[in-house]
Amino acid sequence: MISVVILGSGNVASHLINAFENSKEVDLIQVFARNINSKINIKLNTIVSKYEDIVEADVYIVAVSDAAIAEVVSKIPFKNKLVVHTSGSIELLLENVKNRNGVFYPLQTFTKNKEVNFSKIPICIEAENEIDEEVLHKLASSLSGFVYKIDSNQRKALHVSAVFVCNFVNHLYKIGNDICEENNISFDILKPLILETAEKINVLNPEIAQTGPAVRNDIETIKKQELFLKNNKNLEIYKILTQSIQKNE
Amino acid sequence: MISVVILGSGNVASHLINAFENSKEVDLIQVFARNINSKINIKLNTIVSKYEDIVEADVYIVAVSDAAIAEVVSKIPFKNKLVVHTSGSIELLLENVKNRNGVFYPLQTFTKNKEVNFSKIPICIEAENEIDEEVLHKLASSLSGFVYKIDSNQRKALHVSAVFVCNFVNHLYKIGNDICEENNISFDILKPLILETAEKINVLNPEIAQTGPAVRNDIETIKKQELFLKNNKNLEIYKILTQSIQKNE
Repeated sequence: MISVVILGSGNVASHLINAFENSKEVDLIQVFARNINSKINIKLNTIVSKYEDIVEADVYIVAVSDAAIAEVVSKIPFKNKLVVHTSGSIELLLENVKNRNGVFYPLQTFTKNKEVNFSKIPICIEAENEIDEEVLHKLASSLSGFVYKIDSNQRKALHVSAVFVCNFVNHLYKIGNDICEENNISFDILKPLILETAEKINVLNPEIAQTGPAVRNDIETIKKQELFLKNNKNLEIYKILTQSIQKNE
Repeated sequence: MISVVILGSGNVASHLINAFENSKEVDLIQVFARNINSKINIKLNTIVSKYEDIVEADVYIVAVSDAAIAEVVSKIPFKNKLVVHTSGSIELLLENVKNRNGVFYPLQTFTKNKEVNFSKIPICIEAENEIDEEVLHKLASSLSGFVYKIDSNQRKALHVSAVFVCNFVNHLYKIGNDICEENNISFDILKPLILETAEKINVLNPEIAQTGPAVRNDIETIKKQELFLKNNKNLEIYKILTQSIQKNE
């Protein structure tokens, strides 16, 4: 049984807490939250808010904002423990000399009020040595069937890719939603299309899956749609993405 | 029983042919394909390639490229028949005076070698009069549980929205795929994220669902990621979409 303390109370922390509470191979012994009033769903007697109250554990998972990681890590009152962060964009080697560093990066978009199935979430791990790597592998495997060894450079690439395929994609959904609202159309009409576009990626490479006026080089439709778009920002996005599809670099 | 002739042999036509062949309420009596060698999957004796061989039917569905619609419609050798096209961006009233015009627009991305479940595809219909509208409603309902009356202006808006939430989204998947390939990472790691991002839209408004460095105003991560992107085109897309999320107009 691996004993774990989670530090943090945001979206990633609360989803991890829920997941570990249902795990039989991991003992979540404590949660540290700087703000004890946070709405994380855990028995109150296992939450502490002072660093000196943190108990000994096999692994400390620091699931706080990137900017806060270094400070929280430095204040863990133990030495030579395995301390991991959950960030896509922070490197393995923090200036944390008193403990061993690692990364436990669940690659998913976590939103309050939206449950996720952790067993299908890829977890990217990285450690300073093989023994720690094995511990992280066990920890990750207790939650998910998809555990990957990913070094810091690869994780950076993954995180940028995730911004494109998740954050930017969601923003395009928002633009679609806005256009529908302005024209008294239910956004529901677009939902099957959104889902099919995402599911298609499981069977087709995105380059092959590309459809639409840009890839067909249907200049007439492109011109009509550019005229249709009254919002300058959306027009600019339309033009740059259309050109990018046409260039296919 | 509504009798139907489909004109066309591209992606939309072949998916419609498959769907109508399985329908009990519609009699697909003929397919007209200018190129008889096309690979559509139908009994050969029902395919013709000369306009004069087209038989009489209740509805003619012209599922050809936007640029070819007017020509194909004008050559149908009948008068006062209901002739519909399947395009998102062509208006109802073509210069088709001898027949009655309509629109039968299935809002989905159709790709060769990828089956779709027609029963969940929204079909947008439009007609010149209520009787034709009723015929189209029956026709559409025989395939799908989601039939919408959408006028030409709304259809234009829908089509532009579809370009954002499908074509452009798929292009962002491609960019994510490219970044993964350049860094020896399996694109599979991103697939659960892609699916969750799409599914989230069913329970959350995309504005509320937005996550990532831009909406958090995490300037440090944004700067790091801009430095990471070596491809100028991708960098430009990154910047414009990040700004668009931050402005939230």
